Amino acid sequence: MRPVNPEGRIIREMLRRQDQKPVRLSGFARRLLAEWKRLEWPVSGGRYVVAVSGGADSVALLLALDELVRASRVEAELSVAHLDHGLRGACGEADARWVEELARTLGYECLSGRASVGERARVGRDNLEQSARRARYEFLGEAARGCGAGAVLTAHTLDDQAETVLLCLLRGSGAEGLGGIRPVRALDAAGDVLLLRPLLGWARRADTEGFCRERGVGFRTDEMNADERFARVRVRRKVLPLLETFNPRAVEALARAAELLREDAATLETLASKLLDEASAGATATAGVEASVVTGEKATAVENAGSASSLSVEALAGAPASLRRRALRQWLARGRGDLRRLEMSHLLALEKLLKGTRGGRVAELPGGCAVERRRGRLYFRRKKS
Amino acid sequence: MRPVNPEGRIIREMLRRQDQKPVRLSGFARRLLAEWKRLEWPVSGGRYVVAVSGGADSVALLLALDELVRASRVEAELSVAHLDHGLRGACGEADARWVEELARTLGYECLSGRASVGERARVGRDNLEQSARRARYEFLGEAARGCGAGAVLTAHTLDDQAETVLLCLLRGSGAEGLGGIRPVRALDAAGDVLLLRPLLGWARRADTEGFCRERGVGFRTDEMNADERFARVRVRRKVLPLLETFNPRAVEALARAAELLREDAATLETLASKLLDEASAGATATAGVEASVVTGEKATAVENAGSASSLSVEALAGAPASLRRRALRQWLARGRGDLRRLEMSHLLALEKLLKGTRGGRVAELPGGCAVERRRGRLYFRRKKS
Repeated sequence: MRPVNPEGRIIREMLRRQDQKPVRLSGFARRLLAEWKRLEWPVSGGRYVVAVSGGADSVALLLALDELVRASRVEAELSVAHLDHGLRGACGEADARWVEELARTLGYECLSGRASVGERARVGRDNLEQSARRARYEFLGEAARGCGAGAVLTAHTLDDQAETVLLCLLRGSGAEGLGGIRPVRALDAAGDVLLLRPLLGWARRADTEGFCRERGVGFRTDEMNADERFARVRVRRKVLPLLETFNPRAVEALARAAELLREDAATLETLASKLLDEASAGATATAGVEASVVTGEKATAVENAGSASSLSVEALAGAPASLRRRALRQWLARGRGDLRRLEMSHLLALEKLLKGTRGGRVAELPGGCAVERRRGRLYFRRKKS
Repeated sequence: MRPVNPEGRIIREMLRRQDQKPVRLSGFARRLLAEWKRLEWPVSGGRYVVAVSGGADSVALLLALDELVRASRVEAELSVAHLDHGLRGACGEADARWVEELARTLGYECLSGRASVGERARVGRDNLEQSARRARYEFLGEAARGCGAGAVLTAHTLDDQAETVLLCLLRGSGAEGLGGIRPVRALDAAGDVLLLRPLLGWARRADTEGFCRERGVGFRTDEMNADERFARVRVRRKVLPLLETFNPRAVEALARAAELLREDAATLETLASKLLDEASAGATATAGVEASVVTGEKATAVENAGSASSLSVEALAGAPASLRRRALRQWLARGRGDLRRLEMSHLLALEKLLKGTRGGRVAELPGGCAVERRRGRLYFRRKKS
């Protein structure tokens, strides 16, 4: 016997009016369409996976996208994807059933998955939030590739952006972190699936909740969103309301700052990449003043062809710090494969190598890697295995 | 008959040990010296005006500088400067007497002044804080020039920096604002006197108070620093303590973010200035596609030789937004004399002029100025008088 599914009945009830072709777009869908066009995303063709947790943000995104598709304002094929993180037992399972029913009622395929985030966090020494995020994006990547979608849509809002900016600020991040969440990026390293956030630039959490209410569609609430052991929850419930006593549009102000810093960071990364090319060039031609000091020394650092070549001290030392540090980060990312555990102190140690004329000096990096200055160049050395 | 001066007696009492040559530097003075050297300021020669309000920060700065001078670790001639802002009646006068006595006891000249900030704010339609700052820097400039000092030292701390960053963030500023207070800048437009902040990069307010106590020297308290009608006071008393529950070193994190953003902004300003040079070049050679549209139109926009020349639409349109907007700001600053009341919306209007191929379009700016696109170039137009 098939189990009774009261949520399903409720959703069908709520969406009954859905069958009629919408006469005019809701305000929320119109704003979504405007943002879609502002970001110059295609309005005809394309297959998308919509990540739906069942919360107000993602339900509002799905309902608004559905409106645009039904009204033929965006021609797109949608699949819904939902991951049960395995952290909330029966509640998580109930959410999954609810989202599946919502998708079915609207007429979309629902790709469901289940992860053991608690287990992953223990094994990977990640915190729960990072581990959940990693599991989610892996799942969404598989979902997108499985159904041939070129992009995943998530329902991050202006509030998420403001929270992210504040959390980065509390860590002392530079422009990269303070730029916050990007509206468009590659989902993962493979680079074949995009991650798009069409609510990020304009929708407040109150807007998504209001739109769900307006449409008469409920949403699930995750009690972890009220758990003040999470820094993000405390930022949402304590810091942002306090900041809004200074400026009622503090969330928008934070998001605007993030956008400006994101543009700055993108420009600086491009210029740093050019600096890196310049500094990488002429590996043999520009042997520096310390050549004589290390004559006869056997080279222990190998030129990692295609990964991290050596860099000219002269080219780096003459560049502004904001470009030099970014170039060094890019170089280390190539050499090490990632930037995990790399702190500002390590970059400062590398910069110290650039001072003066003396070679034969080494800066150690986390994970057993190191950088050596020799004959006017920096060499990257991998951990000995 | 000379009035009784009990503060003077107290200060002399407190500083009696001062006459002995210090055997070793205090921790606070050592950190000040380290920062002085890190910033590569000269340790021999130089005349400085030290701005002393009488609060813990500026008293600590003066005491530590005095230590360094007496110990011959920094050879410098110091003058103390104090401005009574005229906002606190008898309290302001008492502060002035207190600072004069402190300076006299330490053996330094004290340059005192009095402003009517309340009156200035009313006339200039500034808020009280802006008006006080303006009056203070005018006074310090006069003081420095009057005694032949090349630099003014102020006692801004790490806490001041964190407060400034948060206030800018609440306004949605980009990297320029979020870079916060600069440790070194020109005091004013004349450019002949530097403004230096040797405590900015390391001293917490608790450090300055602790150092005053350690030396047994009191300090004045300004009740306006407790007036929660000022946003800065609310940031200090409400926001920063809340942020410190997330990260006990939140103030340092904010200051570090500011430093990184300041470096980014400086690099981008330099590059934007190059872009501006490129866009200014070839005023006649690069007449664009809209030439024919406006043939015969009498030029209403004059090339402001030496102030704001016309700009090539093509050069600007092809540049990244973060450089283009900075170049446009620099250009407008030259044309208008300043950037007062210039908002992001005005820059966006200017950027809109760059789109498409049509000329003959105008973007209005506050204060009656405007920018016109004509023959592939942007022209700045001053208000008609």
